[in-house]
Amino acid sequence: MSELRQNIITRDWVIIAPERAKRPHEYGTGVQSKLTIPTYRPACPFCLGNEANTGEETLRWSDDRGWQVRAVLNKYSALASLGERVRHTQGLHRSISGVGAHEVIIEHPRHDMTTALLEITDVAHIIRVYQQRYLHFKSDPRVEAIIIFKNHGKGAGTSLEHPHSQIAAIPVVPSQFRSRIADAIRHFDDQGDCVFCETLADELASGERIIFENPNFVAFIPYAALSPFHIWIFPRYHSSCFEQISEPEIMGLAEALQVVLAKLYYGLDNPDYNYTIRSLPSKQEQTPYFHWYISIIPRITQTAGFEMGSGMYINASQPEESAKYLRSIAPS
Amino acid sequence: MSELRQNIITRDWVIIAPERAKRPHEYGTGVQSKLTIPTYRPACPFCLGNEANTGEETLRWSDDRGWQVRAVLNKYSALASLGERVRHTQGLHRSISGVGAHEVIIEHPRHDMTTALLEITDVAHIIRVYQQRYLHFKSDPRVEAIIIFKNHGKGAGTSLEHPHSQIAAIPVVPSQFRSRIADAIRHFDDQGDCVFCETLADELASGERIIFENPNFVAFIPYAALSPFHIWIFPRYHSSCFEQISEPEIMGLAEALQVVLAKLYYGLDNPDYNYTIRSLPSKQEQTPYFHWYISIIPRITQTAGFEMGSGMYINASQPEESAKYLRSIAPS
Repeated sequence: MSELRQNIITRDWVIIAPERAKRPHEYGTGVQSKLTIPTYRPACPFCLGNEANTGEETLRWSDDRGWQVRAVLNKYSALASLGERVRHTQGLHRSISGVGAHEVIIEHPRHDMTTALLEITDVAHIIRVYQQRYLHFKSDPRVEAIIIFKNHGKGAGTSLEHPHSQIAAIPVVPSQFRSRIADAIRHFDDQGDCVFCETLADELASGERIIFENPNFVAFIPYAALSPFHIWIFPRYHSSCFEQISEPEIMGLAEALQVVLAKLYYGLDNPDYNYTIRSLPSKQEQTPYFHWYISIIPRITQTAGFEMGSGMYINASQPEESAKYLRSIAPS
Repeated sequence: MSELRQNIITRDWVIIAPERAKRPHEYGTGVQSKLTIPTYRPACPFCLGNEANTGEETLRWSDDRGWQVRAVLNKYSALASLGERVRHTQGLHRSISGVGAHEVIIEHPRHDMTTALLEITDVAHIIRVYQQRYLHFKSDPRVEAIIIFKNHGKGAGTSLEHPHSQIAAIPVVPSQFRSRIADAIRHFDDQGDCVFCETLADELASGERIIFENPNFVAFIPYAALSPFHIWIFPRYHSSCFEQISEPEIMGLAEALQVVLAKLYYGLDNPDYNYTIRSLPSKQEQTPYFHWYISIIPRITQTAGFEMGSGMYINASQPEESAKYLRSIAPS
C-alpha cells in the first residue's frame, strides 16, 4: 500500500507510491550521456570568443586562464532594469510595473561543460558570482525577492546547451515565500526551534536519506520528496540568508553541489534538472526561524492534472531507496 | 515593459511579459491535428469490445447506442480502495496510509474522439459520471478531498490516447485547499462577498477576457493567467460544491466545456492540456465564501526553475489578446 507523507517545512502532503516505481537506475534515460556536445559552437553567444553576442556584461570572474564565469543581462528579460516600481490598483486588479532584473550567469567558457564535470574550484567561482549579483540586487530599493535558478536540459525548460543559470530580482514578495515563512514562524513559536534545523538533525540522526555531507553542508532526499530524486542541500549551521555565505562555506557548497550533481549525472545518465536557491525576501536579514537551502528537482517524471488540482504530488519512488542508490554512486 | 498582476483568488503574482510573446495563433504546434488516430486500437483497453482488459467497472453510463462512459478502477492506482485510514506520527514524520480511490473515466467508446469533437449531450454523460462517482466517494468516511482531472496528450502527462479522465479520492485535505479557503474566508469577512462572485461580476462587466458564456456558466482567461490560454470556467450562480450541480447546469457545463475545448482544438491545433475541477473539501457543504470552478491549462509552455523557486509564473502572453483570439475561433 502507498503512504501519504507530510513535509513539515512546506506542509505539502505527498503520495509515496513505490509500487508503481521503477528500480532507481531505471530512471536514467540512456540517451544523454551518449550525445556528443562540442567544446565550442560558433553560433552560441555564451561560448569563449563570442562575448560580443551576449547582453551587456555586469560581472566577469577571471583567473589566470581568462574569464571563468560571466554575468550578463538576459536579452529576453522578463523584467526591466530601468524604471520606477509603480503599484496600480483598480477595482479588483492589482498590478506592479515589471521592474527588477533578469540576468544570465554563464558558468564556464566551454560549451560542453556542466557542473557535474567541473572542478570544485570552478563551481566555487559560479557561487561567488551568484553571491555578488545577489548582493548587488539586494541594495536596489525596488527589489523584494531574488531567485537564483538553473534549468539544465530541454525537459527542464531551456533550449540553450551552454552551461548557464539565471538570477531574477523581482519587485514583490511571492505569496509562496510568505506562507512558508509564516509556517516557519509558527513552528518556532510552538517548538522554540528552527524547523529546518530540526529536520536536518533528524536526517543526520537517521542517515537513511542522506546523500552526501561535508563540514558545512548536508545533502539529502526529503522524507516527503515531491518526485524521484528530489534533493535538498542544507547549510549545516543555521543561517537565513544565502548572500551571507562565507568563503569556507562557498568551498563546502561547491563541493556538495558538484558531488550531488555528479551522482545524478552518473547514476541517472545526465538527467534534465532544475535547481533553485531558497532564501529570505531580500530586504530581510538573519532570523532564528528561517534557514536557506538549495532544492534540486530532476525532471524525470511529469506533473499533470492531479498535481495541478490538488497542489499535492504523487512520487513513484521510495526516498530511502533513492538515497541509498545515490550514496552508492561514486562519481568518477 | 512587462507587468506583474495579482490573482486575488489564489494570491499569486504573475509576470505578464508579452514582449516575449508570439502571436496567439503561433502557439499551435501544427502537428497534432495532422495525426491520424484510428477509431479503434486492438491493444487499447479502453476501446469498445476490450472492456475485459480494464480494471473493475464501477459505473457504466449507457444509452440506446450502448455504453457511452465507463468508470473503472485504475490498474495503476496510487491509492488502495480497501484498508483503514491510519495516521502515524513519529518525531517529525507524519504519515497516513494510502487509502482512498483512484479511478479512470473512459469518456467515449471511440478511440479517436476528444471532448472538442463530441456532441454536447455526450459531454453531459461524462459530467454525470463525474458527479455520480464524486457523490459515491463523498460518502466514504476515509475521504477528505476528491480531485477530478484530465490529462490530454503526452505533454500533459498521459501516454494513453483514448479519451479519459481520472478521479482521485484522498484521505487528507491538501494544504493548498486550506490556504485558498482561508484567503476566501478573509475576503468574505473583509468585503462581505464571495471573491469568486466578485471576480465573475468584474469579468462580465469588462468583457475583455470572456471567451464564452451561457445562462449557467462563464469561461474567461483570468486577469493574472498563469500561462498562455489558462482558462477558468465559473458557474454563473454561487455554489461551493461541484457535486450539487443540477441537470440544467450539467447541460450548460457540457456546452461550455465542449465549446472552450473546441476553441483550443481549432485555434491552437489540438494542444495538450490539463483540466481540473476545484471544489470544497468533500466533507464540507455549501458556504457563502467558496465557489467551485474548472481550471484548464494548455501545456504549450514549460515551467522551469523560476516557477519552482518562487511559486510565481512568467506568462509570455497578454490575457486580453488571447481571449480576443479565442472569441474569434468558431468551432466548426
